[in-house]
Amino acid sequence: MTLKYTLLKQDGEARLGELETTHGKIQTPIFMPVGTQATVKSMTPEELNQVGSQIILSNTYHLYMRPGHKLVAEAGGLHKFMHWDKPILTDSGGFQVFSLAKLRDIGEDGVIFRSHIDGSKHFFTPEKVMEIEQDLGADIAMAFDVCSPYPAPREQVVAALEKTTRWAARCKAVHTREDQALFGIIQGGLFNDLRKRSAEELLPMDFPGYGIGGLSVGEPKPLMYDCLDHLMPIMPKDKPRYLMGVGSPDCLVEGVARGVDMFDCVLPTRIARNGTVFTRQGKLVVRNAEYARDFRPMEEGCDCYACRNFSRAYIRHLIKTNEILGLRLTTIHNLHFLLHLMQDIRDNIAAGTFARFYKDFFAEWHE
Amino acid sequence: MTLKYTLLKQDGEARLGELETTHGKIQTPIFMPVGTQATVKSMTPEELNQVGSQIILSNTYHLYMRPGHKLVAEAGGLHKFMHWDKPILTDSGGFQVFSLAKLRDIGEDGVIFRSHIDGSKHFFTPEKVMEIEQDLGADIAMAFDVCSPYPAPREQVVAALEKTTRWAARCKAVHTREDQALFGIIQGGLFNDLRKRSAEELLPMDFPGYGIGGLSVGEPKPLMYDCLDHLMPIMPKDKPRYLMGVGSPDCLVEGVARGVDMFDCVLPTRIARNGTVFTRQGKLVVRNAEYARDFRPMEEGCDCYACRNFSRAYIRHLIKTNEILGLRLTTIHNLHFLLHLMQDIRDNIAAGTFARFYKDFFAEWHE
Repeated sequence: MTLKYTLLKQDGEARLGELETTHGKIQTPIFMPVGTQATVKSMTPEELNQVGSQIILSNTYHLYMRPGHKLVAEAGGLHKFMHWDKPILTDSGGFQVFSLAKLRDIGEDGVIFRSHIDGSKHFFTPEKVMEIEQDLGADIAMAFDVCSPYPAPREQVVAALEKTTRWAARCKAVHTREDQALFGIIQGGLFNDLRKRSAEELLPMDFPGYGIGGLSVGEPKPLMYDCLDHLMPIMPKDKPRYLMGVGSPDCLVEGVARGVDMFDCVLPTRIARNGTVFTRQGKLVVRNAEYARDFRPMEEGCDCYACRNFSRAYIRHLIKTNEILGLRLTTIHNLHFLLHLMQDIRDNIAAGTFARFYKDFFAEWHE
Repeated sequence: MTLKYTLLKQDGEARLGELETTHGKIQTPIFMPVGTQATVKSMTPEELNQVGSQIILSNTYHLYMRPGHKLVAEAGGLHKFMHWDKPILTDSGGFQVFSLAKLRDIGEDGVIFRSHIDGSKHFFTPEKVMEIEQDLGADIAMAFDVCSPYPAPREQVVAALEKTTRWAARCKAVHTREDQALFGIIQGGLFNDLRKRSAEELLPMDFPGYGIGGLSVGEPKPLMYDCLDHLMPIMPKDKPRYLMGVGSPDCLVEGVARGVDMFDCVLPTRIARNGTVFTRQGKLVVRNAEYARDFRPMEEGCDCYACRNFSRAYIRHLIKTNEILGLRLTTIHNLHFLLHLMQDIRDNIAAGTFARFYKDFFAEWHE
C-alpha cells in the first residue's frame, strides 16, 4: 500500500495520527492549503514551508483545463512542475464540474460539461478522471463523485450517492499507479441514513482513506456537525477521514472534536485577498478605515512573517491601493494562523488536553 | 553633509563610485527599483535584498495621495512604514503631476492639479513638496521641477528650465532635514545649449547630486545619448549623476559609458507583470505560446530564484491563468537581471575592462 495511516493517540474523539505518503510523512489532524492551478495563490513553495504546510491540494478540473494533464506529465508530474516536493492531494473535479462548469448532461457513463473559461465541451468519466489524476501524479487522488447541492430533495441525494458508489468502483478498477493512494468519497447530503448507506457501500471497497463530500455547501454549521456526529462512529479507525472543503477555524476545531483528520478550503486564502484575516478572537477586516493609523501587527503576538514586520496601517494601505504585497501578507498570515491552529490541536491531543483546548478556543473565538 | 560621493575609479567616461547615505553605502553605477506606493510591486523587502537592491525609489505624488505623508511620518517615516532599512530616494512628484494628474494651472508659485484617483484638487509648490518629502524621510529627495514633454517647442523648454531653476532655489531654501540629501534636476529637453544653461544655473547652488530629468519621455534613444554626450562633460566629477526614468539594459550600458551613476525605471517590473523578461540576448516574452512546453528556465545560466526553480512552461501557465506567482517570478528575474548587470558593469570598471564589456554586451544584445 502506498499510504499508511497510524493512529498515535485518541483524546475523546479527536485523533492524533501520522500519514505516510510517497513524498513523506504528514502529522494529522491537518489543514491542506489549496493550490487550485498548481499554485497556492500568491505563495512560493518556500513560503508554504515557512508557514508550516505539510501537504497541499490541487484541482484536477482546473489543471485539466490549463495547462492540461499531459503537459504536467511531460514536465515530470505536478510536484516537479510546481517545485513542491512535499505531499499533494488532487481532488476529482467532481465538485467543480457540478458547481463551476456549465453542465450539459449527467449520464451513467459520466458528465458532459462546458469549460468555465472558453465554453468548450468536455466529457469526464471515472476512467478519464483517473487518467488525469494519475498523469498529475499527486500522492493522494480522489475518486470521481457526484456532489448534490444544498438543499436537495432526498431522491436527488439518493441518486447522487448511488452513482458515486458505482463510479468509485470504476475508479478503483482503473487506478494502477502504485505511488498514489486513491480515496473514496462518502456522499449522502444531510440525510444521516443516506450517509450511513454511502459509507456501507464504500467501506467494503477498502480505499486507504475516505473523503466526506457534499458538506460545507451552504447548510448551517450545526447541520454539518450533526451529520459528522452520526457518520464518524461508523468510519474505520485505521484510515484517515478527510472533510472536504472545510476551513473556518471553528469548523476545524469542531471537526477534529468529531474525529476528522484532514481538511482543505480556499477560505483562508480567498478572504485574505479581500483584506480579511483570522485572529484567535475572530476575523479582522484589515482593509477597514479604522485600521488606517493602527501601527500594531494584524494579530498581536503572532510570529508569522507579516505580523513580525508590518503594521495594520501599512497592509491596509497596500490593499486599498491594490498592491500585491498586501494580499501576500494577509495570505501568509491566514495560512500561518490555520496551520499553527492545527499544530496547537495536535499538541493538545498529544497532551490529552483537547477538551480544555476546545473550551478555551470557543471562549475566545467570535463569529 | 548628509551624502558623500567618492569616485573610486574612472574607465573611459564610466565611473565606479561609492555613495554614503544615512541608511548606508551604495556602490555606483546603480539601478534603483521603483516602489511607487511604498512597495516595489509584488516584492517583499527581503526579496529586494536577495536580488541585490542597494537603494529603491518611491514616488512622492503617490504617497501624498495614499496613504498621505502625515500618516507615513506618524508611522516613523517611509523606511519603517515599509520595513526597508536600506537607502530610499523619493522623486519630487513633478513628473507625475505633469504626466499622470489632470493639470489645472501651472503658475509661478506652483501647480494646481486634480488627483488621478478621485479628481480631488491639490496644489503643489516647491515648499509643499519639500514638506512632503521631508515627512517621508528618504535618504535622497529630489527638488520640485518642471518637466517638458517630447516633442516640445524651444520656448516651452526654456520656460520649464527657467522655472525649474527658480523652484530649485526655493526647495533648497526650505529644505532643513539634515539626514536627507536634496538633489537638483537639470532640464532643457533635447536642446544641448538649454541643458548647458540649466546646468550652469543649478551647479552654483551646490546640490550634493544632480538628476537629469525630461529624458526617456518618448524621444529616440540616439537623441538621449547625444544629449548625454554634451551634458556629461560639464557635470561635476565629485557628485553623483542620476539619469531619471531610464531602465532598459542597453540604455543603462550606454548611460554608464557616458558617466551616469544612478538610474531608475518602472520598466523591468512593469514588463515583468506583462510576461516579458530580460535576457542578455534581449527580451523574451515568456507568456508566448512557443514556451508552453519549454521546460528550460527563463534565462539559462541565471541564478535568480525564479530561474533556479521554475520552467518557462510553468511561469507561462501562471501568467496565462493570472496567477500572482507568475508575475512575482518574472519581477524577481528582471530585477535580478538589471541589478546583476550593474554589478557586472561595476566589476568591469574596477578591472579597467569596461570598453570590452560594452562591446561584448552589444554583440549579444538584440532589441
